[in-house]
Amino acid sequence: MNVSYYRLAVLGNIRVLDNLSHLLDKAAAYAAANKIEERALLDARLFPDMFPLIRQIRMVSDMSRFAPAWLTGKEAPKFEDDETGFAALKMRIANSIVYLQTFKESDFADSAAREVRLPWNPAKAYRGEVFLLQHSIPNIYFHLTTAYALLRHNGVPVGKADYLGSID
Amino acid sequence: MNVSYYRLAVLGNIRVLDNLSHLLDKAAAYAAANKIEERALLDARLFPDMFPLIRQIRMVSDMSRFAPAWLTGKEAPKFEDDETGFAALKMRIANSIVYLQTFKESDFADSAAREVRLPWNPAKAYRGEVFLLQHSIPNIYFHLTTAYALLRHNGVPVGKADYLGSID
Repeated sequence: MNVSYYRLAVLGNIRVLDNLSHLLDKAAAYAAANKIEERALLDARLFPDMFPLIRQIRMVSDMSRFAPAWLTGKEAPKFEDDETGFAALKMRIANSIVYLQTFKESDFADSAAREVRLPWNPAKAYRGEVFLLQHSIPNIYFHLTTAYALLRHNGVPVGKADYLGSID
Repeated sequence: MNVSYYRLAVLGNIRVLDNLSHLLDKAAAYAAANKIEERALLDARLFPDMFPLIRQIRMVSDMSRFAPAWLTGKEAPKFEDDETGFAALKMRIANSIVYLQTFKESDFADSAAREVRLPWNPAKAYRGEVFLLQHSIPNIYFHLTTAYALLRHNGVPVGKADYLGSID
């Protein structure tokens, strides 16, 4: 049995973004109910040299767009890092979903063997298959889970079901 | 393009376990170098009602075995939860890899449509495909990343490269 690249890199990423957006709803409600500045949550870190929550959220959004773009030779839109609160971050996530919805199964016909180069390390080429399985999927779940951990650590009442989303 | 269930649920899980084992090496070395009791790290949580590190580690190990077993109608070995330090937990991980190595591609011929029931909620049946993509993969990365976050939060010098492992 097999799973298509489209399901893994497009539908899977849309699920992740939907779940992240739901987590941010809970964070925003918690901040409002407890008179916590949203920025206090968005600047939270688990250790001083880790990226704060706001960057974890942006990384999920960016990786979710760049992965299918790089696997299909397309150019993903880049977004300004100018959000200052949960509402704007939810818009970034929604715009990422809109972009992902432009992909079709057939876009991935050549993806397994396609050469993928990361902008921050262009000297190194990955086969598309290696990029998808060993880089994209682990990284997207990494930043989603880290965002969840930061919310949990700061008392936001989220649970595993919020992270997983509704299962079909 | 497609990815096989075997790659996702067996080879992918072996990668996760290898990387977790490597993270535990770093944690054990950090504990020894800083005269920290291993148990202090293993009992660490990000919030009082979250599972501590030791349970996160066991959950990665268990889910990595149960997922391919449930997708193929096999019975995965259960391990006693009797480890008290990193060496024993690394053995649990190693034994999980030994079990995963018994699977072959052909074991997954019927997995997409197979009915999977979780022991803690047997009334609910998931199609194998839904279980793999919406439950198993997100959960395994969730507990791996949470283990990483707990180590990071406690000062263990691990980075993204330790989480991702060497990329082919």
